[in-house]
Amino acid sequence: MQVINIALIGYKFMGKAHSHAIDNAPFFFKDGVKPIKKVIVGRTEHLVKQAAEEFGWEEFATDWKEVIHRDDIHVIDIATPTDSHMEIALEAAKAGKHIFCEKPLGMNASEARQMFEAADKAGIVHMLGHNYRRVPALGLAKKLIDEGRLGEIYHFRGVYLQDWLLDPNFPASWKLDKKIAGSGPHGDLNAHLIDLARYLVGEIDTVVGMDKTFVDKRPKVTIDKKLSSDLSAHGDMGQYQDVTVDDATAFLAKFKNGALGTFEATRFAGGRKNHERIEINGSKGSIVFDFERMNELEFWSNEDDLEVQGYRRIMVTESVHPYISAWWPPGHIIGYQNTFVNEFADFFKAIRNNEQVYPNFYDGWMNNRVLDAVTKSTSSQTWERVEEKSKVF
Amino acid sequence: MQVINIALIGYKFMGKAHSHAIDNAPFFFKDGVKPIKKVIVGRTEHLVKQAAEEFGWEEFATDWKEVIHRDDIHVIDIATPTDSHMEIALEAAKAGKHIFCEKPLGMNASEARQMFEAADKAGIVHMLGHNYRRVPALGLAKKLIDEGRLGEIYHFRGVYLQDWLLDPNFPASWKLDKKIAGSGPHGDLNAHLIDLARYLVGEIDTVVGMDKTFVDKRPKVTIDKKLSSDLSAHGDMGQYQDVTVDDATAFLAKFKNGALGTFEATRFAGGRKNHERIEINGSKGSIVFDFERMNELEFWSNEDDLEVQGYRRIMVTESVHPYISAWWPPGHIIGYQNTFVNEFADFFKAIRNNEQVYPNFYDGWMNNRVLDAVTKSTSSQTWERVEEKSKVF
Amino acid sequence: MQVINIALIGYKFMGKAHSHAIDNAPFFFKDGVKPIKKVIVGRTEHLVKQAAEEFGWEEFATDWKEVIHRDDIHVIDIATPTDSHMEIALEAAKAGKHIFCEKPLGMNASEARQMFEAADKAGIVHMLGHNYRRVPALGLAKKLIDEGRLGEIYHFRGVYLQDWLLDPNFPASWKLDKKIAGSGPHGDLNAHLIDLARYLVGEIDTVVGMDKTFVDKRPKVTIDKKLSSDLSAHGDMGQYQDVTVDDATAFLAKFKNGALGTFEATRFAGGRKNHERIEINGSKGSIVFDFERMNELEFWSNEDDLEVQGYRRIMVTESVHPYISAWWPPGHIIGYQNTFVNEFADFFKAIRNNEQVYPNFYDGWMNNRVLDAVTKSTSSQTWERVEEKSKVF
Amino acid sequence: MQVINIALIGYKFMGKAHSHAIDNAPFFFKDGVKPIKKVIVGRTEHLVKQAAEEFGWEEFATDWKEVIHRDDIHVIDIATPTDSHMEIALEAAKAGKHIFCEKPLGMNASEARQMFEAADKAGIVHMLGHNYRRVPALGLAKKLIDEGRLGEIYHFRGVYLQDWLLDPNFPASWKLDKKIAGSGPHGDLNAHLIDLARYLVGEIDTVVGMDKTFVDKRPKVTIDKKLSSDLSAHGDMGQYQDVTVDDATAFLAKFKNGALGTFEATRFAGGRKNHERIEINGSKGSIVFDFERMNELEFWSNEDDLEVQGYRRIMVTESVHPYISAWWPPGHIIGYQNTFVNEFADFFKAIRNNEQVYPNFYDGWMNNRVLDAVTKSTSSQTWERVEEKSKVF
Repeated sequence: MQVINIALIGYKFMGKAHSHAIDNAPFFFKDGVKPIKKVIVGRTEHLVKQAAEEFGWEEFATDWKEVIHRDDIHVIDIATPTDSHMEIALEAAKAGKHIFCEKPLGMNASEARQMFEAADKAGIVHMLGHNYRRVPALGLAKKLIDEGRLGEIYHFRGVYLQDWLLDPNFPASWKLDKKIAGSGPHGDLNAHLIDLARYLVGEIDTVVGMDKTFVDKRPKVTIDKKLSSDLSAHGDMGQYQDVTVDDATAFLAKFKNGALGTFEATRFAGGRKNHERIEINGSKGSIVFDFERMNELEFWSNEDDLEVQGYRRIMVTESVHPYISAWWPPGHIIGYQNTFVNEFADFFKAIRNNEQVYPNFYDGWMNNRVLDAVTKSTSSQTWERVEEKSKVF
Repeated sequence: MQVINIALIGYKFMGKAHSHAIDNAPFFFKDGVKPIKKVIVGRTEHLVKQAAEEFGWEEFATDWKEVIHRDDIHVIDIATPTDSHMEIALEAAKAGKHIFCEKPLGMNASEARQMFEAADKAGIVHMLGHNYRRVPALGLAKKLIDEGRLGEIYHFRGVYLQDWLLDPNFPASWKLDKKIAGSGPHGDLNAHLIDLARYLVGEIDTVVGMDKTFVDKRPKVTIDKKLSSDLSAHGDMGQYQDVTVDDATAFLAKFKNGALGTFEATRFAGGRKNHERIEINGSKGSIVFDFERMNELEFWSNEDDLEVQGYRRIMVTESVHPYISAWWPPGHIIGYQNTFVNEFADFFKAIRNNEQVYPNFYDGWMNNRVLDAVTKSTSSQTWERVEEKSKVF
Repeated sequence: MQVINIALIGYKFMGKAHSHAIDNAPFFFKDGVKPIKKVIVGRTEHLVKQAAEEFGWEEFATDWKEVIHRDDIHVIDIATPTDSHMEIALEAAKAGKHIFCEKPLGMNASEARQMFEAADKAGIVHMLGHNYRRVPALGLAKKLIDEGRLGEIYHFRGVYLQDWLLDPNFPASWKLDKKIAGSGPHGDLNAHLIDLARYLVGEIDTVVGMDKTFVDKRPKVTIDKKLSSDLSAHGDMGQYQDVTVDDATAFLAKFKNGALGTFEATRFAGGRKNHERIEINGSKGSIVFDFERMNELEFWSNEDDLEVQGYRRIMVTESVHPYISAWWPPGHIIGYQNTFVNEFADFFKAIRNNEQVYPNFYDGWMNNRVLDAVTKSTSSQTWERVEEKSKVF
Repeated sequence: MQVINIALIGYKFMGKAHSHAIDNAPFFFKDGVKPIKKVIVGRTEHLVKQAAEEFGWEEFATDWKEVIHRDDIHVIDIATPTDSHMEIALEAAKAGKHIFCEKPLGMNASEARQMFEAADKAGIVHMLGHNYRRVPALGLAKKLIDEGRLGEIYHFRGVYLQDWLLDPNFPASWKLDKKIAGSGPHGDLNAHLIDLARYLVGEIDTVVGMDKTFVDKRPKVTIDKKLSSDLSAHGDMGQYQDVTVDDATAFLAKFKNGALGTFEATRFAGGRKNHERIEINGSKGSIVFDFERMNELEFWSNEDDLEVQGYRRIMVTESVHPYISAWWPPGHIIGYQNTFVNEFADFFKAIRNNEQVYPNFYDGWMNNRVLDAVTKSTSSQTWERVEEKSKVF
């Protein structure tokens, strides 16, 4: 049993999801590791103390730098808002600690590149929190594509629709502040779509986008007096503050392999809660996935007789499907939290085997490049090329 | 071109559907026949006159016997309530006229047997109006089963759910009068399920059933002053009348080939409009059909790789599918009325070729036997055997 | 009864659909008109003769100009490829004949404007064949939006997906020839999406698009020896010909009222047959429609209690829904052809009442303007403004 | 913090599910309890030892009686096959230990009654493992029914379909041995349906049923050499053994409140994995639930305007829904294991508050009575009354 001592920086929604996953990974996956929830770190002492109790961490702390340099810590798990990712990651890499970082990796491609280079140079294991790659249905999609069952890819069609900002009185949380979050659904949700597009189809060449802020002033957030691990927030109706990020961003993309892509992310699609839906069409087959029904994959193949061709609703809960043998019998579906368990199990296994894991900081950098190109296009009002790596180095 | 002169007896909902089908059959199917809407017959002169105009019949009449014996009439189309089917059919058979009859064939198996025997002896073409056999998706289901793609059949699961009686003030139309309709959803809807069960699985051996009338008194129907071709009816709220038929009937069945069946028909399933849904499971495959999405057939096969097994949603709109080459391109769906057009085209073709067509009066007799056995069981409170043919002859 | 004599120019897929609709409109809608299928016109005598027989036209002819100027003709129904729409329409307008024209109206906005101006000046009734406005579910969508039940519109999301070109050996029919068709799925399918977007959301201000031809050479079409009324075609595998239209076109749009739109049309989406799917999100509600399930409308409203909010699957088959009272009882679904019947019934009623009907040539012109702007953007690689009317006049 | 020391008897599929739930309950629910996985008990030492390691139990043991009488144990968790439930439960009640027992409670109503009476007399907290009551969507269904939003209930329609026995070479595991399991899908799956029917509709009065064993001989199970926590099993193809339980059981039911019910459970429904689907229709509303999409509830209400009536797909993932505030934000779905976490959290809370929890052994007894009546009916071939409580006491 290899003991892995973890320091988690951040303690809200992702803090809860990570804590749960760290606990459960060794229960379901027998990989010879023993992860320890050593210390949880946050700026506000009474809140981080409460989080330590609720999520079961041995210690809590308020000075992340000090924690990073503790000898007994093996992993730094970054679950803070985006604006602090780089500083923490660079320090952790310098200290030779393995890093798990929530997405998007950096505020922009330049930050992400620095993070990747530091991690790469340090020789650590680095992983990026695109947990949706650990949905079994998407693992199956990847396998089908790799086996050529979709043929040449023609179309990627991705939307990530939520509706939690539909109420104009929902307050201006940190997610709506450009300085902290970098962007709105673009970095939050399009980043997920871009990760899946890169994973399943390939690199994107050029993009053109648009964005919009439908509600540009919202009530100021009341200072949080207690720990909250969901998206809710409370606002002071007397005071308003500018929303400085997009409410919705959509873009067209041309992939390097010739496929066409459409992407859209919004927090204003009434009735859609976590509707990440992708559809891929190739010369031989098609797939459709919707996170709200994440245990299913629709698959159409032109290798079936024409008479019985149709989109199959595959329940991706068989032991032959990715990750499922660790879970439950067929039809006993898994949920959101299981994707984190799968993800952390892979991360711990990579540490134990001292090997790279995907997606990692390289993927985060590539992802940020696409996000940046869309942002640039939104402003230039024209197609933009995703910045070449060669230009950067 | 073979001219086929038709007399239609009855002019309400089915009168409209038949008139439309007779018009459209030669447009879509080029079978060398020229059906003529010669005369429409009804008891109430001003209403049948109006129907003749609306539905485009050359003449109208009030004396059906006279019409049956006209030399220029080739086909008697019976679209009246069930209680008059036998008398009309026997007369038509005697006159040597081909007969199309709406379902259920008779008020009971004894009537149905007499009708079948008369028609059989007369050597006429006789057809029973189970139009759902002409839904392309169900034709495909039949083909898959005949080809053995479902293997040995284990389960038939059929429900036919409607909700038009949910309102207790919906009046007591003739469909709720046992003397005229014979029964409620049992004869109206279970008859359809039984027809599909016999078509797709085989004969039923024994049954046990239950029924219920949830609302046993309803407003008397106001005398219809004008033609109505839908299910609506107007009631006199001051006067009530007994409902003498079932509001819902369900039964269990054992098929002769060993399969198990469950059947349920109701007019009290809120939100279900014409939800005829069947599911068949066999040793190798399964199918699911729902009339409200009648252009689709779900099909599961254990011959697919386990990894990609799943119910396929087949759009049954390809030219390789039954009847579709007469209609529209893929994905351009057809509707309720098209099943009648398909049905009448088959009927006319049978007349032209002087050959039998299915389902016919024999099927109607077999169907009435099952209906009767369920009714008997509902009263005896025990399993009943579907009456053997040998006992009857 | 007002007799309306019709000349139909064109006799393939749309010729069949129109012929059927002209026959059936007076059966289902009692508007005091008697449309007569007088003469069908085509260039190839033996084919148009055959069409006249199959579709039941009194006469056939090969010279459309002559037919237009016949005194006994009241309506010119244009169902030819796009490149001949303008010439025919201008002649018909000059002759004072009412015109029904298939979409898209012109090869470009300039043609469409001339057609509108000629029709407008002539004072005739002119209608454009966007039959999907006559789908009851979309009529209901329009009603809900007009009543404010969706609130302020934020998003329009439309895809029109087909797969009939997925086979690279499908031959190069006239639909793949730019000179005849004008464009590929852009004019064929995006035109439908644009019509619905304008109908349900409003005018589009600016667009940016991309297109692609995935398979740029296909077998030459074998000369048609017989009438074919579907999308099928036969090719000569020895000879290839360039495909000169797009296989797929997608674009982003900003509406004048501030809504964002995404549009995509393709013939390369495997498993999608006639998958016209739109989703509209507003500040109070959302709707979703898919043509392959055209009897259903999904509707979400934030006026429901949060606890029971969800997309409702409305079966749009109640007599309170648009057009349904002419058809069948609840749950007895209608199909593709019924949209044409509804459409022609409205057209005939407008002629009888001597009033305008929608969509008409003005809508066709507005639609062509959007199509043109996307095409221009695809070439300029930047956002383009939809040409202002003021510039044109 | 109240420490609760648990002894778990049984260590296969349910052993894994319970162990996970015991770990996770205090993480998500802050109820002031600290459950301890003290000792796991099984007959085969090397397997129970392995289970203790895998599932994280402090100790393991092979003598369940000894464990029951340990002073430090507060809870006996019974996850063994049905035939040993009574003996263990009676001993545990005698020892005054709280009991959690998997379903069905007893081999028959007589056993179940003894268990209930013993538990009741001992004054312990007793709970029955019908975890599906802890699915948030079914909690919502219960709430809607209790609030009268479905009105008077007319119909309960339940199927529980699986397909893991479709392969005739799947071996004869203990679940197919009547002496150990009591029955096949009847006790395994119909028990779940009956629990939901009682929970949502009420007590059942009379039943009539049928059952069938489609494959009556199967390969003998090879002795398990290692721990397996799913449904898989390995067989010796040379030796066959009789299947002594039903492969499928269906029954009709009349509820005391007048509602009609249909129930069906099978392991031979190809393509159905854990398809527990119920539909309830009342005078004002309807609901539909399918476990394979357990985060959704369909709800239809006739209080909506007719124009927009339809089944709503409610994503039951809002914080206003049962249990959800402990979990994730809207649309971030939960899975099978979460139902056990919810269930054990409720069980622990009941222990802490020293109050009864539902479903408990009384519910188990009532449930066994229905199971027994169906079994009796299957043999008597007639309707049977569910045994009256008064007869038993």
